[in-house]
Amino acid sequence: MKVLLIGATGTIGSAVYRLISPRHEVMTAGRSEGDVRVDITSTDSITAMYESVGKVDAVISTPGASFFGPLAELTPERNEIAIESKLKGQINIVLLGIPYMRERGSFTLTTGITMDDPVKGGASAAMACGAVSAFVKAASLDMPDGIRINHVSPGLLEESKDKYSAFFPGFEPVPGTRVAQAYLKSLEGAQTGQTYRVY
Amino acid sequence: MKVLLIGATGTIGSAVYRLISPRHEVMTAGRSEGDVRVDITSTDSITAMYESVGKVDAVISTPGASFFGPLAELTPERNEIAIESKLKGQINIVLLGIPYMRERGSFTLTTGITMDDPVKGGASAAMACGAVSAFVKAASLDMPDGIRINHVSPGLLEESKDKYSAFFPGFEPVPGTRVAQAYLKSLEGAQTGQTYRVY
Repeated sequence: MKVLLIGATGTIGSAVYRLISPRHEVMTAGRSEGDVRVDITSTDSITAMYESVGKVDAVISTPGASFFGPLAELTPERNEIAIESKLKGQINIVLLGIPYMRERGSFTLTTGITMDDPVKGGASAAMACGAVSAFVKAASLDMPDGIRINHVSPGLLEESKDKYSAFFPGFEPVPGTRVAQAYLKSLEGAQTGQTYRVY
Repeated sequence: MKVLLIGATGTIGSAVYRLISPRHEVMTAGRSEGDVRVDITSTDSITAMYESVGKVDAVISTPGASFFGPLAELTPERNEIAIESKLKGQINIVLLGIPYMRERGSFTLTTGITMDDPVKGGASAAMACGAVSAFVKAASLDMPDGIRINHVSPGLLEESKDKYSAFFPGFEPVPGTRVAQAYLKSLEGAQTGQTYRVY
């Protein structure tokens, strides 16, 4: 399959790349690295990415920033970080990507454990994940040409625990290699509208 | 209690108003009617509303538009309708309202059944509801001064069934009077981080 992997150099993206690149033709896209450059906060940039890549069998999206910190410090402006990238960025990858997706292709987006098992400081991230999760479930009912759509919700990553463990007391870290398997399940499996939780 | 009711003239808002106005001092806010005018898509307008109303014991938010229709017609621009009002509008009512909320006050936001029980055409609404739902759950852990936050998720409203029943086959309509009770539960009860489903 021809797979477009957006965010291929992040912790999750690179684990996904290692797992799927021996099995599929993978095109990578990222803000500063990759076969194609894309700024997912810009609809023009997303469209330019698809124009350059052409028709694909699957799109996997792993990027998305968000403000992490006390609610009292979460201003509407800081909340825009997650809205523009993790939320709108990922949803626009789908809305603008449908015309470039081959029949029975698939979209796999990324959410995270904060939507299910919230922590202090994680309201903005949770908001974006909750949005993507509910969008996927509803959009799966309405996709043309048998196109599937799922999302992977990773727990606290083993690789990121030094940076984030203070926010996630008692959360068991999961290795990127385990999380990557969920993307493979979405890519090569037959389900749609699913949340693949790796907690 | 001094309660600020935003969206008081809508189907839900007016049912909430009838139920709570005999019990509390209710200030109403809306785009074109009410004690105060507010455009919830503008942070300046939300702040001006709070400046005009002053300290409150509770805020209830019932407004929020969204595009309802086939996914193929859901452009990024049409998706902005829900993002700007139902999603960001409601969340900014909280983020900008915290300084105006008295100790142990409460915010009650509005979501909807499409996030749990999706239908064709409802991806944009579901997205906004999922965002607000996950935000409420996470933000409740981090609210200052014992402030509570909940949301009410109404099913298909009896009063709106003529307009929407084609999108909701087999959904049992619920009367606005039942939905309004859930807002009263959030307002006068003690729970936080809850989803009050009225399906």
